[in-house]
Amino acid sequence: MRESFGAALHEVGNLLVSMAEAARTQMRQATYALLTADKEAADRVVARDAEINELYRQVEERVLRLLAQQQPVARDLRMVITAQHVATDLERMGDLADHVAKTALRRHPAAAVPAELATVIAEMAEVADRIAGKITLVLARYDTKRAAELENDDDVMDALERDLFAVILGSSWQHGVEAAIDAALLGRFYERYADHAVNAGRHVIYLVTGEIADGQASDEDPELPESL
Amino acid sequence: MRESFGAALHEVGNLLVSMAEAARTQMRQATYALLTADKEAADRVVARDAEINELYRQVEERVLRLLAQQQPVARDLRMVITAQHVATDLERMGDLADHVAKTALRRHPAAAVPAELATVIAEMAEVADRIAGKITLVLARYDTKRAAELENDDDVMDALERDLFAVILGSSWQHGVEAAIDAALLGRFYERYADHAVNAGRHVIYLVTGEIADGQASDEDPELPESL
Repeated sequence: MRESFGAALHEVGNLLVSMAEAARTQMRQATYALLTADKEAADRVVARDAEINELYRQVEERVLRLLAQQQPVARDLRMVITAQHVATDLERMGDLADHVAKTALRRHPAAAVPAELATVIAEMAEVADRIAGKITLVLARYDTKRAAELENDDDVMDALERDLFAVILGSSWQHGVEAAIDAALLGRFYERYADHAVNAGRHVIYLVTGEIADGQASDEDPELPESL
Repeated sequence: MRESFGAALHEVGNLLVSMAEAARTQMRQATYALLTADKEAADRVVARDAEINELYRQVEERVLRLLAQQQPVARDLRMVITAQHVATDLERMGDLADHVAKTALRRHPAAAVPAELATVIAEMAEVADRIAGKITLVLARYDTKRAAELENDDDVMDALERDLFAVILGSSWQHGVEAAIDAALLGRFYERYADHAVNAGRHVIYLVTGEIADGQASDEDPELPESL
C-alpha cells in the first residue's frame, strides 16, 4: 500500500513538472509572438493551452483516485491536496500565457507593444521565465530554498510593472487610450503569472516545513501600482 | 460514521453559504464606496476581506479533517473536493470586491468613476449582486436550475463590459489614460467576479449531475472584448 501510494504520488509529481514546463514554454512563445507580431506563434500558444488544461484534468483525476483508493492521512494527505493546489496555479499560468498570445492576435498585423515598452515587457518576460524555471525545479526536488527565492523575483516583477505604468502614464505617451489599456493588461498578465508561481512555491514550502505561508491570499493580485 | 460525515459536510456547506453572503455584501459595499467616493465604506471592505479569507481557511481545514477522519469515497469524496473548489472561487470573489474598494481609495477624495460610466458600472454591480444572490441559494439548496441561469447572467455581464469599453475607447472620452485604465480594470473586476460565481455554480452542477462542466477552464477570463 505504501509503495503504491508513493508511486501514484510520484506520477502526480511528474504531471506537475510537465505542467510547469508547458506553462514556461507557453509564456516564452507568447512573448515572442507579442514582440514580433508573429500570428502563427500566437496561434500555436492558443492551441496548446488545451494541453495544459488536459494535464490539469489528469492531475485532478489522479488526486481523486488517490484519495479514494489510498485514503491517505497526515502528511500524505497534505501532499495530495497540495498537488491539487499547485496544479490550479500552473493551469492559471498557462491561461495567462494564452492571454498574452491573444493580445498579440487582437492587434495583428500591427504590433501590440509600442517600441518604448518593448524593453520593459521583455524584462518582465525574462523574470517570468526565470520564475517558471525555478518552480519546475522546486516541484522536481522540493527545493524550498529556491521556492523562497521566488518572493524576491516577484518583487522585481512588481517593480517592472511600476516602470511600465510610469511609461503609460507619462506625459510623452503618444499611443492613446487603447494601447495604454492593452499595455496595462499585459503588465498584469506577467505580474499575475509570477504571483501564481510564488503561490505554487509557497504550497511546496508549506508541504515541506508544515508552516503556513500566505497561501491563497497572494493568489490574486491585491495591489495595483500606487501610481495607477 | 455516515451521520458524522453528513454533519461535518453540512458544517462545510454552512461555511460556504457564509462565504457567498460575505462576498455579496462586500461587492455591494465596494460599489457603494466606488460610486460615492466614500472612504470609510471602502476602508471597511478592505478590512473585512480578512474575514472571508478566514472562512476560506476554515473550509480548507475542515476539508482536510473530513478527508483524514472519514475517508470518503465516490460521491462523498466528490462533494468534499467540490466544497474546496467552491471555496476557492468565493474567496476570489471577495478579493475582487477588495480590488474595487481599493480603486475607490486610490482616487479618493476624487471619484474613481467619471459620470458617464456611473450607469454602466452600477448595472455591472447589479448583475454581480444578482449572481452572488443566486450562488448563495445554489449552495444552500443545490439548485442546479438556478446554477444554470448563472451562464445567462454572465453573458449580460460580458455585454455590459463591452458597453463600458465602447465608452472608454469612444471619441468623446475626455478623462485621459489613467482614468481609462482604472475603468477597464474595474470592468474586469466585475466580470471576473461573475466568472467565479459561474464557475462555483458549475462545480455544484457537476456534483449533482456528475456531468463535467467547463470547470477550471472558465475560471480565468480568457476573452477580452474584441474591441480592446
